[in-house]
Amino acid sequence: MSKTKARIRLFVNDSLAEGSCLTASNAQAHYLLHVMRCKPGQRVALFNGREGEWWAKVIFQTKRDVQYHVEKQSQVQDSTPALWLAFAPVKRMDFIAEKASELGVTALLPVITQRTDIKRINTGRLQLHAIEAAEQCSRLSVPQVRSPESFDKFIASWPKGYRLYFLDESGGGLPIAKALMAARQEPCGFMTGPEGGFVQSELDVLRQLPFSRAIGLGPRLLRAETAAIAALACWQALLGDWVSEVGRVSR
Amino acid sequence: MSKTKARIRLFVNDSLAEGSCLTASNAQAHYLLHVMRCKPGQRVALFNGREGEWWAKVIFQTKRDVQYHVEKQSQVQDSTPALWLAFAPVKRMDFIAEKASELGVTALLPVITQRTDIKRINTGRLQLHAIEAAEQCSRLSVPQVRSPESFDKFIASWPKGYRLYFLDESGGGLPIAKALMAARQEPCGFMTGPEGGFVQSELDVLRQLPFSRAIGLGPRLLRAETAAIAALACWQALLGDWVSEVGRVSR
Repeated sequence: MSKTKARIRLFVNDSLAEGSCLTASNAQAHYLLHVMRCKPGQRVALFNGREGEWWAKVIFQTKRDVQYHVEKQSQVQDSTPALWLAFAPVKRMDFIAEKASELGVTALLPVITQRTDIKRINTGRLQLHAIEAAEQCSRLSVPQVRSPESFDKFIASWPKGYRLYFLDESGGGLPIAKALMAARQEPCGFMTGPEGGFVQSELDVLRQLPFSRAIGLGPRLLRAETAAIAALACWQALLGDWVSEVGRVSR
Repeated sequence: MSKTKARIRLFVNDSLAEGSCLTASNAQAHYLLHVMRCKPGQRVALFNGREGEWWAKVIFQTKRDVQYHVEKQSQVQDSTPALWLAFAPVKRMDFIAEKASELGVTALLPVITQRTDIKRINTGRLQLHAIEAAEQCSRLSVPQVRSPESFDKFIASWPKGYRLYFLDESGGGLPIAKALMAARQEPCGFMTGPEGGFVQSELDVLRQLPFSRAIGLGPRLLRAETAAIAALACWQALLGDWVSEVGRVSR
């Protein structure tokens, strides 16, 4: 939601600096020309996840070749705390990628559990959804979509010093607000299971990890995507950047 | 997410009592016969929002005529606190209806604000989405989808004793956790604006109501549906039925 007509805001891989001239990707050129019907010289905002956000002028070289002339920095890069979302792939994972990006997730980790039915995971497509959401929600970074891993490999490669909150749909978890109010902001990740839930052996592993916490989201059976969004929202509200009273810069 | 194969669970309008015999709607008959491939005599769970949940046997009279023979009550009716969601209709409102139902909303109120672009609001369809989500998430009730109202009429008919939390995307709201931790569980509703946001005069009205609170959801610009889900999740986590440590009955 925004109060005024949204400006155009795009993610680029290139380095951003005053005076630099970048070539828009084919997809962005199409979007600027045919979707947004940009005028030559129109200003857009660019960000690359490393060097803040910059105003750039759109220059049409030919009908297909669009360039950005980078002008002035509009925002310096912020640093966001590590907040991961590990999820057993489900039908609506595009949606999970979009919402996780809006909710400030820094990495998305597809994990193949025993009851995961989805065989084909298009991480490129998930990355595009995450980028598009980042463009629209005014983030300065983009969550990184990792390659799918098996449950065992995921657990074995969990980084030291990171907390893992897993959504325990069997009813044994601590209420999420209680768990988070007792916690501090630290690098962490949430994990959701597949449509059929975790199997008992996976729950046993998850419960015994020294860095894990089982959390519960009440008496109703939530879909995986609802649980992911709900848990991330609670984290932002209690420990993340929703705690501060500073309003965002109105655009 | 559930640990075991989901049982079939359906909402009916009829009264439920031991020994009663109900006729399934055409849609439910089709679902039972052709989607779930029910066997004659198979047991399903029925609920009507008033008399708890009951086991019933599925009886096929003909290939199209399906009856329920109601047997034994499996859960007594609970009473859930009033939790409304008022929303300016947006493209993804089917999704809002589904998620609001999972998150325990008791009434859904479409409100036509000045920047609401969506003209056609199919409340019947929204109701079906809300019912389907209630069936799947094990609720004993179904949120009621109201007829669309103008902003002014919505404000004028807001019930006495209900708190109204509106999502103030202009940055002036209290952080949601701060607002809810200072509140008690009372009848309340959340309100989200349209894709273009509330206009200034609407914000002025909302801010001056004695029963309203402006709340904020951090620095990123959330889509309306994300804001709705996030706010409802925070309410359930801090004031609703996610607070309790009692795990749900495993099915």
